[in-house]
Amino acid sequence: MGWLSWERFRCNVDCDKDPDNCISEKLIKSMADLMVSEGFKDAGYEYVCSDDCWQSMTRGPDGRLQADPKRFPSGIKALADYVHGKGLKLGIYEDFGYLTCEGFPGSEFYLQLDAQTFADWEVDLVKFDGCHSQLTDFDYGYPAMSFYLNKTGRPMVYMCEWPDYLNMNGIMPNYTAIRKSCNYWRNYDDVQDSWDSVLDIINHFGNNSGNFSSFAGPGGWNDPDQLVVGDFGLSPDQERVQMAMWAMMASPLLMSVDLRNIRQESKGLLQNKYLIEINQDPRGIMGTRRYTKGSIEIWTRPLTPPGQMATAFLNTGYHGVPRKLTVTGVELGLQNYVKYNIYDAFNRNKIYDSVIVSDNFTVIINPTGIVMFRIENV
Amino acid sequence: MGWLSWERFRCNVDCDKDPDNCISEKLIKSMADLMVSEGFKDAGYEYVCSDDCWQSMTRGPDGRLQADPKRFPSGIKALADYVHGKGLKLGIYEDFGYLTCEGFPGSEFYLQLDAQTFADWEVDLVKFDGCHSQLTDFDYGYPAMSFYLNKTGRPMVYMCEWPDYLNMNGIMPNYTAIRKSCNYWRNYDDVQDSWDSVLDIINHFGNNSGNFSSFAGPGGWNDPDQLVVGDFGLSPDQERVQMAMWAMMASPLLMSVDLRNIRQESKGLLQNKYLIEINQDPRGIMGTRRYTKGSIEIWTRPLTPPGQMATAFLNTGYHGVPRKLTVTGVELGLQNYVKYNIYDAFNRNKIYDSVIVSDNFTVIINPTGIVMFRIENV
Repeated sequence: MGWLSWERFRCNVDCDKDPDNCISEKLIKSMADLMVSEGFKDAGYEYVCSDDCWQSMTRGPDGRLQADPKRFPSGIKALADYVHGKGLKLGIYEDFGYLTCEGFPGSEFYLQLDAQTFADWEVDLVKFDGCHSQLTDFDYGYPAMSFYLNKTGRPMVYMCEWPDYLNMNGIMPNYTAIRKSCNYWRNYDDVQDSWDSVLDIINHFGNNSGNFSSFAGPGGWNDPDQLVVGDFGLSPDQERVQMAMWAMMASPLLMSVDLRNIRQESKGLLQNKYLIEINQDPRGIMGTRRYTKGSIEIWTRPLTPPGQMATAFLNTGYHGVPRKLTVTGVELGLQNYVKYNIYDAFNRNKIYDSVIVSDNFTVIINPTGIVMFRIENV
Repeated sequence: MGWLSWERFRCNVDCDKDPDNCISEKLIKSMADLMVSEGFKDAGYEYVCSDDCWQSMTRGPDGRLQADPKRFPSGIKALADYVHGKGLKLGIYEDFGYLTCEGFPGSEFYLQLDAQTFADWEVDLVKFDGCHSQLTDFDYGYPAMSFYLNKTGRPMVYMCEWPDYLNMNGIMPNYTAIRKSCNYWRNYDDVQDSWDSVLDIINHFGNNSGNFSSFAGPGGWNDPDQLVVGDFGLSPDQERVQMAMWAMMASPLLMSVDLRNIRQESKGLLQNKYLIEINQDPRGIMGTRRYTKGSIEIWTRPLTPPGQMATAFLNTGYHGVPRKLTVTGVELGLQNYVKYNIYDAFNRNKIYDSVIVSDNFTVIINPTGIVMFRIENV
């Protein structure tokens, strides 16, 4: 859980004309400040991460990466100190190729040195991209960076774009190998600030090619990309969908929003403790799409202790009228000889008391909206 | 300006299972009540309209249309009386074909009788659809219904789906003929509760095939379909876009939203007096898209008195970051030898004082968002 600059701030390097929104230590520090003062830290968000464009265009005379001196005048080590002083952790971006996606120096030929640099700077998370490199090198390169990061002795979360690039090129990722090297990994396209993009990602995860959901678990996670909750493109219903589905999918929950002017409703959703509890469930089993009924997708996620689960009803339609759906206990995954209480997953209000497998349940789901249950055996 | 049932309530006729949301006199009356009590009437909304599905499946023994007796037990005349008692006007739906789109009796072979029935019921607006009919009959049928409506002696606003059906079938509508018969007309596809749909409609109007914008003016209007502001599919920025662009396009402003539970922000937007004033400008000239710069569309609309105008900057991108654009006075349509004051069209705050044609203006437009100026010569 944390905050990542990319989706909201992209590669804005123009601090002369846009000092408040360019990628800079000022921006990262102000987000760190707000993560604490606005309750995001207390809600569980811990990593504050710069994506691409933090760098200088050249390496230093010692071959080391260096931050852009104008936008990060104090350097990354000082930034890490600042972030640590807030009780948070710092994430940083690099790329396996010879350049980053935006054209800054990449790690090719420098894997070990860059890993050591990040450790020396006391970075806590490395997002490792795959632009400007050979697909055929990935099976070597991503594990190599993992090896060098581990070799530094500093624990750093290691995020890989590895399967995303393979998927883009029609190659089935080897998730066994990926999980061995990476702590989390992007499976699919970059999220954009639109419902179409969020739904497209949900459906890639629902289709679950390569059965990658089974690889999620403590130590390694599928990443459907950043939350765009609080940005410009989602309706209140659609924001609820993203937050709830990202919880269902055991996603890393990386916000990418301007915390200086986030709407109250969006903030409350990002800090929803019931959804976060589901997201952070200790067993770490990823939710999957069980089936589809017309425009409704039904997803379930087993929770801790066994017998508990979350069930989401996602309405992908935009046809004006909330959709009413009646489902059976069997369809919800209820079992014989067990009684269940059913709660609204958003607020923990009990909706049904001591229900059994033969009962029916009616849900009303807004267009591009979601209803989500948390189900517990009595 | 008014409220229309279709986009939000569709053809829900199940009053047994869904008594609060089915198409019924109860629903129409409750919307009329709320139009008054919640300030929509004061803001200018006047017509409360039932779309398809108000009818009984059969005509009466006298051949007349009749309302469904279960859902409209008091009948349409009584409903009109109720609505008139609120100081509002009643709109009703029919279809030129032998059936309505949803399969209720159409007006084919009954044009004169149906026009008289609507007049007898003291209806104030007729929306006339085109399902289940021959395209080749439209050039006769729509003017015929206009003739019979006029013949009743009761003034009724006459809305035609005529050009929409021609457009769907690749036939260029004859807007000269359409304007002669109809008070407003749907040019393009039904709006859905999604940004894609709203943007698609805006761009059909922007592309303006057949130059139909020139046919808008007092007595006859192009209709980009209902406002979905307050429904489920638009973000706050996207709702601002729809309201502002519908104002630019001199649209009839028909809401289709559940007024019983509309969000405050959406309500404020629907009642924004500055946008409504632009929408209702007495000259009634429709705004047009002047040009496009990357993801930004620039629209202008001349206002009353000549020398005033509205200019909208619409960002169709969903790429995370608000877009900054600098435009010249020439691009805004400013003229030599004239000084202008520029106001934010949403709140009438003055942004620029006494500017001239050689000045430059910078606007920052959110993704899927809009900035709109009202410009007045000093």
